Amino acid sequence: MAYTDIAGQCAAAGAAAKTLASAGADVKNRALDAVAQALTQDAERVLDANRADVEAARKSGMSAAMLDRLTLDPGRIAGIAGGVREIALLPDPVGKSDGTTKTPDGLMIERRRVPLGVICAIYESRPNVTVDIAALCLKSGNSAILRGGKEAFNSNLALTGVLRSAISGAGLPEDCVSLVTDTSRESVDTLMSMTGRIDLLIPRGGAGLINHVVSNSKVPVIQTGVGNCHVYVESSADLNMAANIIFNAKCSRPSVCNAAETLLVDRSVAADFLPLAKALLDTKNVELRGCPETCSVIPSAVPARDEDYYTEFLDFILAVKVVGGIDEAIAHIGKYGTAHSDAIVTDNYTLAQRFLDEVDSAAVYVNASTRFTDGGVFGLGAEIGISTQKLHARGPLGVEHLTSIKYVIRGSGQIR
Amino acid sequence: MAYTDIAGQCAAAGAAAKTLASAGADVKNRALDAVAQALTQDAERVLDANRADVEAARKSGMSAAMLDRLTLDPGRIAGIAGGVREIALLPDPVGKSDGTTKTPDGLMIERRRVPLGVICAIYESRPNVTVDIAALCLKSGNSAILRGGKEAFNSNLALTGVLRSAISGAGLPEDCVSLVTDTSRESVDTLMSMTGRIDLLIPRGGAGLINHVVSNSKVPVIQTGVGNCHVYVESSADLNMAANIIFNAKCSRPSVCNAAETLLVDRSVAADFLPLAKALLDTKNVELRGCPETCSVIPSAVPARDEDYYTEFLDFILAVKVVGGIDEAIAHIGKYGTAHSDAIVTDNYTLAQRFLDEVDSAAVYVNASTRFTDGGVFGLGAEIGISTQKLHARGPLGVEHLTSIKYVIRGSGQIR
Repeated sequence: MAYTDIAGQCAAAGAAAKTLASAGADVKNRALDAVAQALTQDAERVLDANRADVEAARKSGMSAAMLDRLTLDPGRIAGIAGGVREIALLPDPVGKSDGTTKTPDGLMIERRRVPLGVICAIYESRPNVTVDIAALCLKSGNSAILRGGKEAFNSNLALTGVLRSAISGAGLPEDCVSLVTDTSRESVDTLMSMTGRIDLLIPRGGAGLINHVVSNSKVPVIQTGVGNCHVYVESSADLNMAANIIFNAKCSRPSVCNAAETLLVDRSVAADFLPLAKALLDTKNVELRGCPETCSVIPSAVPARDEDYYTEFLDFILAVKVVGGIDEAIAHIGKYGTAHSDAIVTDNYTLAQRFLDEVDSAAVYVNASTRFTDGGVFGLGAEIGISTQKLHARGPLGVEHLTSIKYVIRGSGQIR
Repeated sequence: MAYTDIAGQCAAAGAAAKTLASAGADVKNRALDAVAQALTQDAERVLDANRADVEAARKSGMSAAMLDRLTLDPGRIAGIAGGVREIALLPDPVGKSDGTTKTPDGLMIERRRVPLGVICAIYESRPNVTVDIAALCLKSGNSAILRGGKEAFNSNLALTGVLRSAISGAGLPEDCVSLVTDTSRESVDTLMSMTGRIDLLIPRGGAGLINHVVSNSKVPVIQTGVGNCHVYVESSADLNMAANIIFNAKCSRPSVCNAAETLLVDRSVAADFLPLAKALLDTKNVELRGCPETCSVIPSAVPARDEDYYTEFLDFILAVKVVGGIDEAIAHIGKYGTAHSDAIVTDNYTLAQRFLDEVDSAAVYVNASTRFTDGGVFGLGAEIGISTQKLHARGPLGVEHLTSIKYVIRGSGQIR
C-alpha cells in the first residue's frame, strides 16, 4: 500500500472502483466471506498491532472510556467478522432496477442503481469502523479510502492489510480498500479537496470533526451521528410510561447517537413526573442539569447553563427543562436539537399529530424510546451511520444509500 | 420585500417554509393557479420592466442570442403561466409514504416525504427561470430564494412581485418566494455561506457559475445542466440511423444541455460515415472541428484543439474524433465528458451492453438521440434541471427530488 500521495491513492481507488462496479454479487460476497475468515485467522497480527496502539494511548493519558473504544480482543474481532458475514447476506443494491418504462415512440427507459465510485470515511479512534465501512463499501460496489485516527494507526494498518489480501485473494483489486497513512490534519484537508476523485466523504466522530468537514469539504459530504435527542413529556402522558421511556432513552446505552440528552416536561405535570423519573435515573446515578423550575422540584439537580441544552453528553448526564406546552417544546427542539431523533409521550391525539408533523427531525416518535433509530430496526440491515441532513439520505444509511442511479435507454433509431 | 440583509431574508423564508410544509395540496395548487392567472393579468407590468432590462442590455452590447433569452413577450408570458398550471396538476410529492411497517414489538414505522425547507437558486439572465423555480418549490412545499442575474433584475423584481401577491392572496405567506436584490458577486458568496438557513443551493447557468458554486458553497448543492454529450458511431452501426441521430442530437436545439457536442466515429467506418453525416449537418451549416483523420476525410473541417473536446458549444459547432474502437470511445467520454447523456449507435449486442454498463453518465443510450434526457420524457413532469452529480438525485430533477424523508414512529410505550 505505497501510494505516492493522496491523489495517487484516489486514482488507484478509482481504477479499482471501475472493476468493482461491474463485479457480480457472488464475487463481492465471496470477498466479504474471505475478509471475515481472514480477520479470524489473522486475529493475532491485528491484536499485536492493537496492543501497541493501546499502550501508546495509555501512556499519553487517554481516558478509560476512550481506551475501551480503542481496545480489540478476540471476542471483539469475532464480532467484527460476524458483522462482515451479515453484510455479505444483505441483498446486493447494485444493478437493481425499479422497472423499465416504454415511451409512446418505443424507447425503453430503465432506472438502474449504480455504485457511487470512491467513498472516503474520516473517523476517530474506533478500529472496528475500519472494517465496517470497508465491508459496506465493498458490498455496494464502491472503493473505500479510510482515514482513521492516529491513536488507532497500527490497528488500522494491520486491519487494512488483512482486508486487502483477502479481497485480492478473492479476485478483486486490493485498492478497493486503502488506508490513508498520513494521520496529520493536512491529510483531512487534502481529502476534502479531491473533487472528481472522491465521490462521497463521510465524517464519523465528534461534532468538532463533523462540523469541520461539513464546513470545508469541496467533496460531497453526508453528515452522520451527532444526536442531541429529546424526550418531551406532555401533560396527558401516562407518567409511568414516560419515566420508562426517558430511563431507557438515556441509560440503555448513553454513548450512542440515538440516546436522549434532554428531557422536556410540561409544567402541569412536572411536580408529579420529575420525582418519578428521578427514582429510575438514580439507579444509574444520572446527573440532572435542570432549569430553575426543575431545581425547585428536584433540589439535588445541578442548575443547567444554556450550553447544556446544546450538548450531546454521551454520558449519564441529562439536561431537564420545564416547558409551558407543545409550542415551547417544539421551539426548544428546533433551536437546540440536531434533527436526529425526538419523542413525545402523550395521550392526546391532536398533539401527537402536531409533534410528528412539526418537529423537523430524521425520526420523530410518539410513546417510544429514541433508541429505536437504527438501520436494523428500520429494515435497512447494517448501517454506515445515521444521517442528520436532508439531502441524499436521512436517518439510518444502509448500503442502498451508497449507490446512485443511472438511466439506461435502449432505442431503435429514435430522434426528437 | 424589504429585508435587512440576506440572513434576514433567509429567516423570513424559513418561517414561511414552516407554514408551507403543512399546507395541503389544494392550498398550494390554488396558489399556483393564482400565480398563473396573475402572470397573465399583470403581463403589462412585467413586460414594461423587461423592456427596461432589454434596452439596457442592448446598450451594453449583449449578443443577439443572449438578448433573445432575456426578452419576454405576451406569448412567452402565456407559456410561462401555462407551465405553472402544469406544475399545479402534478401529484403532490409531500406527505407521500411508501407504506408503514410494524416491528415485532408493535412499533409502527412510516417513511414519509417532507419538503427540504429553503431552496436557493442562483441563475443568469433568463427571467422565466424565476417563475419555473418558484413554482416547483411551492409545489414541493419549499420556500424559494431567487438570485437572478443583474441583466434581468427589473424583470425578476416585477415577476417576484406578481408571484408574492398572488401567493399571499391565496392564503400562503408571501415570503415563500423572494428575490435577492443585491446582484453583486458578494451576494452569491453570502448565500453560499448560509448553512442551516438554506437547505439546498441550485446553480443554473454556465460552467463558470456552476463550478464556482460547487467549489465554494458550504450549503449543500445540486449541480445541473452542463452537458458535454457524445454520440459514438460504432463500426456495426446502421450509418443512416447514426447520421439521423447525430443530426438530431446536434441540431434540433443546440442551446440545451442534452444536445450533442462531440461525435466519435470508429476508424473502420469513418470514410463512409463522415460524408453522410456532413451532408445532413451542412443543412444547418454546422462547423465541424475534427481530429487529423477527420480532416483528411472532410477537408473543410477545422482542425480541433484538445480544448474543443472539453467544450459545451451550445451552438452549431461539433467536435469530431475518429477512434480505434469502444475502449477508446469510453475512455474519451470519461476524460472529456460531463457525465450527462451519451449515446452509442451500434448493432452489436455485446458492445451495446458494455457501453451502457461502463459509461458513467446520468443517461446512457443505445441507438437514440441524447435529446431525450428530460423530466417529461422520463416521467417526472416538469423539471428544475438535469443533475450531473451522483448524490441525492441524478438526471432530470422533478418535484420529488426537492423533498427529503422523515421517519414517523408510533408506539405504545416501547423501550429498547
